[in-house]
Amino acid sequence: MKNKQVCLASRPSGWVTQENFSLRETDVGEPGSGEVLVRNLYMSVDPYMRGRMNDVKSYIPPFQVGEVLQAGVVGEVVSSRFDGLSEGDHVTGMLGWENYSIADGRLLRKIPGSEAPLSWHLGILGMPGMTAYVGLTKIAAAKKGEQLFVSAASGAVGSVVGQLGKILGCRVAGSAGSDEKVALLTGEFGYDAAFNYKTSESLLQSVKEACPKGVDVLFENVGGEQMEAVLWCMRDFGRIALCGMIADYNAAEPPPGPRGMMLMVGRRITMRGFIVTDHPETCEEYVRKAARWVAEGKLKYRETIAEGVENAPQALIDLLKGGNTGKQIVQLA
Amino acid sequence: MKNKQVCLASRPSGWVTQENFSLRETDVGEPGSGEVLVRNLYMSVDPYMRGRMNDVKSYIPPFQVGEVLQAGVVGEVVSSRFDGLSEGDHVTGMLGWENYSIADGRLLRKIPGSEAPLSWHLGILGMPGMTAYVGLTKIAAAKKGEQLFVSAASGAVGSVVGQLGKILGCRVAGSAGSDEKVALLTGEFGYDAAFNYKTSESLLQSVKEACPKGVDVLFENVGGEQMEAVLWCMRDFGRIALCGMIADYNAAEPPPGPRGMMLMVGRRITMRGFIVTDHPETCEEYVRKAARWVAEGKLKYRETIAEGVENAPQALIDLLKGGNTGKQIVQLA
Repeated sequence: MKNKQVCLASRPSGWVTQENFSLRETDVGEPGSGEVLVRNLYMSVDPYMRGRMNDVKSYIPPFQVGEVLQAGVVGEVVSSRFDGLSEGDHVTGMLGWENYSIADGRLLRKIPGSEAPLSWHLGILGMPGMTAYVGLTKIAAAKKGEQLFVSAASGAVGSVVGQLGKILGCRVAGSAGSDEKVALLTGEFGYDAAFNYKTSESLLQSVKEACPKGVDVLFENVGGEQMEAVLWCMRDFGRIALCGMIADYNAAEPPPGPRGMMLMVGRRITMRGFIVTDHPETCEEYVRKAARWVAEGKLKYRETIAEGVENAPQALIDLLKGGNTGKQIVQLA
Repeated sequence: MKNKQVCLASRPSGWVTQENFSLRETDVGEPGSGEVLVRNLYMSVDPYMRGRMNDVKSYIPPFQVGEVLQAGVVGEVVSSRFDGLSEGDHVTGMLGWENYSIADGRLLRKIPGSEAPLSWHLGILGMPGMTAYVGLTKIAAAKKGEQLFVSAASGAVGSVVGQLGKILGCRVAGSAGSDEKVALLTGEFGYDAAFNYKTSESLLQSVKEACPKGVDVLFENVGGEQMEAVLWCMRDFGRIALCGMIADYNAAEPPPGPRGMMLMVGRRITMRGFIVTDHPETCEEYVRKAARWVAEGKLKYRETIAEGVENAPQALIDLLKGGNTGKQIVQLA
């Protein structure tokens, strides 16, 4: 049995290109004691992967040149030498950009039978959904009646943040990078207001129009000029959940922060960076609630699906430029 | 009886100059019902005054062109038509840059007899001391054994932050703008390490040397390049109490924030702006404790004192350039 794998060929400086990846074919091995052989069905493509391509120590170790890249994966157990998982089980875990992975059984989570499509466990029922919930409810402590703004609002995380905001009773506005995505925000995802940041003539004016009462809670996925525009519209005692800054990921040098941070003093603003894996209990709480919300139609979900592991590099390149709508997935089998 | 007053002649653009002020002489009036006539003894000169010289709505209203500027003042009651204050009482409140003020008695606080010099109620026993305590204990929640960094560390607020940090059991480092001030930090104020940011060849290297274990808590008074250097040295779950950003106050345009704010995500950093007057109970707690710490010699204090209300403008101009050591006061009588 052959295994197609995508490796990191070189570290990018600035934007990621095809040259940073290499494809190879190997034989599929046998699981050792305590290990499981998984046939990978879907892999997740996420903005944080860009950070792992740099040789910088962070909360997760960097990808290594010449080695297989990692991703969140949903797969099916082919053979198991781990008690508690057996052939045919569906599992999720941090596996490789490849068709088959051998993994320590303790690092896999069994997916219970459910009506939701399997790939959703990489999105609305997985890490992006948990990230939205942790950031909105625990980090920013958004409350009923507050004004919420979400950047990259139609993405895997942003689309859930907005819908959770509506469930909490917030007024919700957001930005996205095409008129199609903006229509999706105010249509399917129930945003009260949205704008296309790429065609906006003044980001500050666009935020003011989208949030005439100002912003109590900013869920920040983008950084850069968009973040600055929203910062200027923050209300007293506002909170910013810093989830990511995709606008900065491909800069060769770290770009400056938003202008006018002195506003944070006068308006008593709190800005807090967070990592979803620090909050396992809140994640479990979300997964329980989300299954019900999805079944009730309160949480809607969109995916962009690429086919084949060899197309995973292009899927990441496109994602970093905003080419996806909703969650970016690669179907592997 | 004649009253010398300093008025705002024009709003500064960039650095404050003498041309922004005008001096006038008027007759001292009589207090109306519920009012008190105060002979002003000392006035406080503070960085936040620069913000009030701009025509920008903030947590306190801007100074008005043509009107007397305001400051924290300690004075002596000359005559009172307010129950609860009588001739000879010492009071503190937000009064004018002038020799005599007439004020609503409800807005004055009587200073109980104490051994501390009267001017200290504008500094270590007043708002700057309270600001240090609120920021360090409530906003940043500094704990025993943590690494604390203070910018503008020899100033009215910074010098108290460092000493409170030592009382809490933190390791304390800071920066100041002259070798003399640095000597004061590691000498009189008990800092474990300090450097002169004006002669530093690399702020990042200076912070690393001053804080070899990194920084858990940053008490930020300065902003700009210094803040950026410390941000890069922050440890996981670090907290930044944003008290002020004196480096930005005289910029004609709001300057950009620190580079590399994506660090705040990976290291889960919280940055929080605050205003001392939002925390009256914590302030009262501080005043009780500080009186004891001062008496026990655990809190030391330095003042730079200018003479005469006509020299108050120069005192503010100097303060904004870092000319003072410790608390800047103007003696008015």
